[in-house]
Amino acid sequence: MDGSTFDEASQRARETICELCRLFWRLGWASGTGGGISVREGDRIFMAPSGVEKERLVPADIFELDRAGCVRREPESAGKKLTACAPLFMAAYKHRDAGAVLHSHSLDVVLASALVPPGEPLRLTRLEMMKGLEGVGYFDVHEVPVIDNTALEHELEARLEQAVIDWPKSNAVIVRNHGVYIWGRSPAHAKTQAECLDYLCRAVVRMHAAGIDHLLHDRSQPDAAANA
Amino acid sequence: MDGSTFDEASQRARETICELCRLFWRLGWASGTGGGISVREGDRIFMAPSGVEKERLVPADIFELDRAGCVRREPESAGKKLTACAPLFMAAYKHRDAGAVLHSHSLDVVLASALVPPGEPLRLTRLEMMKGLEGVGYFDVHEVPVIDNTALEHELEARLEQAVIDWPKSNAVIVRNHGVYIWGRSPAHAKTQAECLDYLCRAVVRMHAAGIDHLLHDRSQPDAAANA
Amino acid sequence: MDGSTFDEASQRARETICELCRLFWRLGWASGTGGGISVREGDRIFMAPSGVEKERLVPADIFELDRAGCVRREPESAGKKLTACAPLFMAAYKHRDAGAVLHSHSLDVVLASALVPPGEPLRLTRLEMMKGLEGVGYFDVHEVPVIDNTALEHELEARLEQAVIDWPKSNAVIVRNHGVYIWGRSPAHAKTQAECLDYLCRAVVRMHAAGIDHLLHDRSQPDAAANA
Amino acid sequence: MDGSTFDEASQRARETICELCRLFWRLGWASGTGGGISVREGDRIFMAPSGVEKERLVPADIFELDRAGCVRREPESAGKKLTACAPLFMAAYKHRDAGAVLHSHSLDVVLASALVPPGEPLRLTRLEMMKGLEGVGYFDVHEVPVIDNTALEHELEARLEQAVIDWPKSNAVIVRNHGVYIWGRSPAHAKTQAECLDYLCRAVVRMHAAGIDHLLHDRSQPDAAANA
Repeated sequence: MDGSTFDEASQRARETICELCRLFWRLGWASGTGGGISVREGDRIFMAPSGVEKERLVPADIFELDRAGCVRREPESAGKKLTACAPLFMAAYKHRDAGAVLHSHSLDVVLASALVPPGEPLRLTRLEMMKGLEGVGYFDVHEVPVIDNTALEHELEARLEQAVIDWPKSNAVIVRNHGVYIWGRSPAHAKTQAECLDYLCRAVVRMHAAGIDHLLHDRSQPDAAANA
Repeated sequence: MDGSTFDEASQRARETICELCRLFWRLGWASGTGGGISVREGDRIFMAPSGVEKERLVPADIFELDRAGCVRREPESAGKKLTACAPLFMAAYKHRDAGAVLHSHSLDVVLASALVPPGEPLRLTRLEMMKGLEGVGYFDVHEVPVIDNTALEHELEARLEQAVIDWPKSNAVIVRNHGVYIWGRSPAHAKTQAECLDYLCRAVVRMHAAGIDHLLHDRSQPDAAANA
Repeated sequence: MDGSTFDEASQRARETICELCRLFWRLGWASGTGGGISVREGDRIFMAPSGVEKERLVPADIFELDRAGCVRREPESAGKKLTACAPLFMAAYKHRDAGAVLHSHSLDVVLASALVPPGEPLRLTRLEMMKGLEGVGYFDVHEVPVIDNTALEHELEARLEQAVIDWPKSNAVIVRNHGVYIWGRSPAHAKTQAECLDYLCRAVVRMHAAGIDHLLHDRSQPDAAANA
Repeated sequence: MDGSTFDEASQRARETICELCRLFWRLGWASGTGGGISVREGDRIFMAPSGVEKERLVPADIFELDRAGCVRREPESAGKKLTACAPLFMAAYKHRDAGAVLHSHSLDVVLASALVPPGEPLRLTRLEMMKGLEGVGYFDVHEVPVIDNTALEHELEARLEQAVIDWPKSNAVIVRNHGVYIWGRSPAHAKTQAECLDYLCRAVVRMHAAGIDHLLHDRSQPDAAANA
């Protein structure tokens, strides 16, 4: 059960998942068995199991799937269930060639989602941390799609896949009153994307709660040369 | 005093209690000697002592009781007092066959309890984290009973036991301006239940504080198929 | 510099101070060189130095004083300054026979102090965590004195000593816009007192910020028997 | 890659940067590859690289520059980019002879910056933690300059340098909706300055959010003797 039978790339992917799960749990993004982590190594996709304490995972608990989403290797440890997030993770692998897809229950993302009217995206602008998101600049109005939640996670599949297709500039889909799916080129990149979006949602919620408008006093101009 | 005289199941239960106490203290649920932890192994029930720094407990500090609530083995370390929570823990063992019962002073639970009118339960709906609670779905209106506090912990016994009986769908009883008793099939299950309820109470309080209504923009429908 | 020249009681007191300083720093109560810790062993009083990073202290950095407040042994490490809190710590040793006195810059205590009118104490009632404070019950109205701040810490001495004398039921004096001095029978007891008061101030501030009145729905009565 | 080829002073500076980066990341000041750290040893200046996970840095990842801002030694590890903060760090080395310059994305600083009208500084008064800032007293009105942000970090250079010159009593420059540059005589001193300013900004934002005016009930007078 120590994962010694895994090849090197598989072992690395499994350990990365366990490490990210411990981090997510410490950050409150995966408490109460919530959240999920998936990592791709070439054409092999690794996923944390469902319904277990995420901070206690070991490499032998991880599922291995192919790019069609079929389980290729069950966990060595007994009694594990494939996460209901699996088809949702696959949407980002299929349409964006992601290297890792993370699912967080960050309360700041959940509260930010509650502020967004139906059919509209979360809009972010003029916060430096936006520059940490892939391809986004300080003066952009960056849009992250928000979809409504469903009773069962797998029922989200169609609308999440549609959001992935409809919002090609976003590497995240927020699920209202639920959390976020977010991805990157690699596990490290996906993690930094999750950190940035969490920070930005926390900023949005704290500003809303405190009656702070960060645009009110901002006189900065996109043409920085004229402004220096 | 290193617990080497305990049989394996007893040692495991005692170590689990110490580990959960350290976690609860880090989370702010057991600061200032507050909170309590109890674990059942078969017909033996183990409890952390009263009035000590919870993050410093060792296996030799733990009480062992039988299912009638009688102390069967005193702690090996000197000067320990049985927790006044003991009869409250017993209510969940007696009526729900719990595998572990936890008592937290989570400030988020306390603040959420202050929002609930007398005689009414805390009502939760349309927050994904509800699905982490035993037997609860996203579209349910889940009710957690709230009872008033008393001067002494053991005086809570009758009203807490009544709440356990009256609210069979809840695996927790909130005590107003005090904290929560929450249980599960096993220590790990009880811990995840506590994490979920804490998250949900934090959501309720933060939304109240920020003037956020998470139902305002939610157009999701229980019949997901019609909504995809 | 490893403190090996100290006798056992001295070494223990010095290590306790270092450990509490690390804890206080992690909790944000001693950031930026702020805060202070003092421990008594018999008639010897030990104090952390001033103006240094509290989380990095070692036993050789600690001052030893007698009960008259005179330095009896300088730190072995070079360049340390006695804390300006020294006369303030002495007030609790002199009038209350404290075993340890702690000084925290907890922001929650600071914010709670800003809510208290001049000449009035902070009043706490009907919060379970009050029972963690020495000699305080749930239905009490517990009063913690609040004094105004001064430009220099040692100038606080007279008014802090007066507050210690005037409020014999409180084991803490809050300094407005500054922090709190709090003590107990032992270092562990003083630490739990600090944890309880911090929790209570956080409750007060969060309830104020969120518009929550924890007495509004509370129907509990001091005579618990009539209420069960 | 273990930095064994560095001389002692260089190795120490590199390790200090890595340690401060881990701390900043844990505090949420350098999440998502954000933030930056620079340390000076004599005439050699060391800087963390850009766009990497700050909590994972090792000594071999660090750049070495001279006091003119020219890179003198590339990192031993491959693929590192010099931080765009470099010219901003140099302003504090050039005009203030700083021993270390830190750049944090602290959300509390960002939210505090949003409260400050254009052209005005952040003003702080009557908060004890101000005394942790270099040369600042409790009754002072301490001013920290706030400049507007730009699309690219290096475009901030002129206005940040001007602020350093224009506000000689401040050892920090806040960048609106972005973060703060802050420095000290040494890495430890710069770190304590960052901790103090962060605490003070958190106080400002939490008081604003909670409708708390910390001056309302404060009757303390600068002439403490008359007030004792």
